[in-house]
Amino acid sequence: MPRPTERRSFWTWGYVSDEPSAEERAKAAKLVSQRLGREISPPSVPNIEEIKLRVPRLDVPSRLGEFVTSEHSERITHTYGGHSTELLAAIRGHFPSPPDAVAHPRNSDELESVLEWCSTNSICAIPYGGGTSVVWGLNVPEKCDSAVSIDMDCMSGLLEIDQVSRAAKVEAGILGPHLEDALRPHGLTLRHFPQSFPWSTVGGWIATRSGGHYATNHTHIDDFVESVTMLSPQGWFQSRRLPGSGAGPSPDRLILGSEGIFGIISDAWLRLQKRPVYRASLGAMFSDWEKGTEAVRAVVQAKLWPANLRILDPVEAGVNAGLDGTRSLLILGFESADVSQQFSIETAAEIVRDYGGEFEQEDILVADGTGRATGRGGKVGAWRQSFIGVNAGVGLGLGLLSDTFETAITWDQWPSFDAYIRDKVGSVLREVLGESSTLACRFTHVYPDGPAPYYSFSGPVPIGEEFKHWKAIKDAASEAVVDAGGTITHHHAVGRMHKSGWTKQTPLGYDQVLRAIKKEFDPQGVLNPGVLVDP
Amino acid sequence: MPRPTERRSFWTWGYVSDEPSAEERAKAAKLVSQRLGREISPPSVPNIEEIKLRVPRLDVPSRLGEFVTSEHSERITHTYGGHSTELLAAIRGHFPSPPDAVAHPRNSDELESVLEWCSTNSICAIPYGGGTSVVWGLNVPEKCDSAVSIDMDCMSGLLEIDQVSRAAKVEAGILGPHLEDALRPHGLTLRHFPQSFPWSTVGGWIATRSGGHYATNHTHIDDFVESVTMLSPQGWFQSRRLPGSGAGPSPDRLILGSEGIFGIISDAWLRLQKRPVYRASLGAMFSDWEKGTEAVRAVVQAKLWPANLRILDPVEAGVNAGLDGTRSLLILGFESADVSQQFSIETAAEIVRDYGGEFEQEDILVADGTGRATGRGGKVGAWRQSFIGVNAGVGLGLGLLSDTFETAITWDQWPSFDAYIRDKVGSVLREVLGESSTLACRFTHVYPDGPAPYYSFSGPVPIGEEFKHWKAIKDAASEAVVDAGGTITHHHAVGRMHKSGWTKQTPLGYDQVLRAIKKEFDPQGVLNPGVLVDP
Repeated sequence: MPRPTERRSFWTWGYVSDEPSAEERAKAAKLVSQRLGREISPPSVPNIEEIKLRVPRLDVPSRLGEFVTSEHSERITHTYGGHSTELLAAIRGHFPSPPDAVAHPRNSDELESVLEWCSTNSICAIPYGGGTSVVWGLNVPEKCDSAVSIDMDCMSGLLEIDQVSRAAKVEAGILGPHLEDALRPHGLTLRHFPQSFPWSTVGGWIATRSGGHYATNHTHIDDFVESVTMLSPQGWFQSRRLPGSGAGPSPDRLILGSEGIFGIISDAWLRLQKRPVYRASLGAMFSDWEKGTEAVRAVVQAKLWPANLRILDPVEAGVNAGLDGTRSLLILGFESADVSQQFSIETAAEIVRDYGGEFEQEDILVADGTGRATGRGGKVGAWRQSFIGVNAGVGLGLGLLSDTFETAITWDQWPSFDAYIRDKVGSVLREVLGESSTLACRFTHVYPDGPAPYYSFSGPVPIGEEFKHWKAIKDAASEAVVDAGGTITHHHAVGRMHKSGWTKQTPLGYDQVLRAIKKEFDPQGVLNPGVLVDP
Repeated sequence: MPRPTERRSFWTWGYVSDEPSAEERAKAAKLVSQRLGREISPPSVPNIEEIKLRVPRLDVPSRLGEFVTSEHSERITHTYGGHSTELLAAIRGHFPSPPDAVAHPRNSDELESVLEWCSTNSICAIPYGGGTSVVWGLNVPEKCDSAVSIDMDCMSGLLEIDQVSRAAKVEAGILGPHLEDALRPHGLTLRHFPQSFPWSTVGGWIATRSGGHYATNHTHIDDFVESVTMLSPQGWFQSRRLPGSGAGPSPDRLILGSEGIFGIISDAWLRLQKRPVYRASLGAMFSDWEKGTEAVRAVVQAKLWPANLRILDPVEAGVNAGLDGTRSLLILGFESADVSQQFSIETAAEIVRDYGGEFEQEDILVADGTGRATGRGGKVGAWRQSFIGVNAGVGLGLGLLSDTFETAITWDQWPSFDAYIRDKVGSVLREVLGESSTLACRFTHVYPDGPAPYYSFSGPVPIGEEFKHWKAIKDAASEAVVDAGGTITHHHAVGRMHKSGWTKQTPLGYDQVLRAIKKEFDPQGVLNPGVLVDP
């Protein structure tokens, strides 16, 4: 694959063309000004060429020169992932720890060459997919004497289609939309749509165990990985393509979630779907949030396996789906390539109504065999727009601090878990960001044994002091989540941001086990140091 | 838990009361005599007290004396698993490598004590669940200087029920029926029914990634493990109870399939179901086996997630479901605690009919909300009886060699995979067991991307030479399965029997990775040596 001609943005998700315009930023600033009651202007974006970087601490060998570069803008655009703390540093021109070079291997041989160069010279090797990490997963740690960011954007092809098994072999660097574009002519789809979908890659999804489109049953990319190929400094590690197996601990499951510390994922066989043509959806309102979550539990425990089963609390439903701020919105959706979803949606709707969900019969939208989308109008559609319309750059540096944290917890702990989180995080939020700060919750995925709650917070922050305030809230949130029995992340990954929470939640001794595994794959410890385990 | 009062059988699955009677064995001998055309009598069962054993090679410390014993019959009943090669050796009184002692820890402290004793004295520690391993998973290798079998039968309680999340914490030594008995009053069920169900344990299921009741979607015990606790010589390893997570490589998935080489599973939180009251089933016949398997593919790819979706080839359907030997039998079943299965079965039945499946409309049995079982009559019921009626002891030593091997393969490789297996294994079978030998296939589980075929073979063998002939066939089968792209096991585990095939199918370097993990958990290498990795 040739290198994409378009340049990545250095201060928002995606490419330069994805950057919000000056007008959009001004409009956002105006809205924030109204909310905060004082005049705020968007920060100016520095000229990329004028950003100061330390001198590269290594020389790229000439044999690697065709695909490894120390070019200024390449180093800039590979310094940060997509978290607001990073984008804010970027838009302010702070790049204290850029990679010394960026590699764009175009094939397995080049991937081998660059990783071997790193390994034999103790150069840190940072795997780079789409650059949307929100957990500090791709930064160069200060301890590294030198570092290369290995961007997989030239290894991004669809290699093989298996129509009979509904599977495809794809290279790790393929972006979500490119994958779907390549599959569409074959009538197939992966249907894995993390919020970062336009800018994130298959390799990144696998490395971070990303959560996708399906709110129930097969929620993580894990379920769609049929086999995977990874290059470590010790060589190629390739699992066998199998629909299922019970032979020893699964090698795929060792790679899934390894976040680049064992090797670089180069390609994978993925399980696909036929494109859905039967669809059904429903939005139902609840005046009682807790009752609404009970309805979600009842639906998921009935095992009808809806593709969508989410609930937004009153704050979230007000901001993102146009509700009045007092009611929750439960979103239900079914889809299939082969089978009418009428029975499923009606059965689920009945459960929702039994639990006090408010909707009219005509709110149940069914498109049988037409392929027509049913979840794009009304409240459900409004929510969908706000979800896919994420633009990380638009609100940067406007004196409004926003972030999210997400987890999963068993139902027996719910809703006391929710109350605990709102109490602990809410009090820190009010203390740090003031009484006008907000905390909202939705479920992104649900299981018969528990939900995956996703919290969003927002509030005014003194411009220039975002990091300090963010950290106080984030620390409180991480501590509360783990103390109350949740996981530090359901689908955002661990990275460097969640490492201490993760260490608390994992079994005693797991850290040593992972180090031992890493030592087998990466004896020099060059791969993504500081992620998951200490370097 | 007190020690079960009933004694295990030393020559068949389960307890002494499970042993076939002299009459049953005589009847079986008569049937075999008819098939082989010569008079065959069942071998006599030796008196357990008269079986010769080597002297125990260790002294049990007095502090462990309350739950560790070197008693003769205990050592005998813990020498072998449930494979016919083992049972045949047992009924002939050959016990060359018994454990030197057997432990029945009654609590965590005792489990710690015995494992610490083993670890500090380099005594091999062989975890023992229900003793039904069919892959030589619990034997004492010749290389061990001394060995203790650690039987978990006294750690077999239901510890906690979580009705809201539908989960339970159970000790690893609980047997299938005892677990279901304990859950029944709570309206819950695990519904995990491997063929060894009456005699196998939760700990064994987890250690071996056993395959269960559900033919689609959640096929392995893996999907029902919410968290797990394991004791290794380095201490307790306990994962957090979570409905889902994307935080790093899953620690549960490292324990699942570890077959006792990292530690001894002591308890687990399991995801449960409400007992089904809506059921539906159908048996359909196909005159064309390949066409029948295509129907299975179409049904599983429609993602209706039937609980049962199996197909028996003409030989299997003839022997075990009473068909005429020319037609295949497709078995379809749906069940739910909450939702009518009428729509699902009718939709699936239509697909089956489209592919040429033969059945009458009244063959579609639906029991809506009554709890009545629908799969117990007719052809489907006949098959069910033959599946659950397995009695490993009844045909022992009658000059008929029978065994099974099972795998999984993607659909694009099917049916050429089937043809390859039948060719390779069939020719060795005919060579070794003669022209009257049979080879049959069924699918035990199916996935959207491939089936899990299960092969059974049978044929006459000179009494006393079973092992040699069995080995020739088994080696050919293992080689064919792995060479043709399958897994050496879909749900029977690896043990010592499948180790070489497993090594061939797993990624290069995986062996070293597992050794490194084992070294972290078990630095002395005392746990189940020779399983998965070399000692």
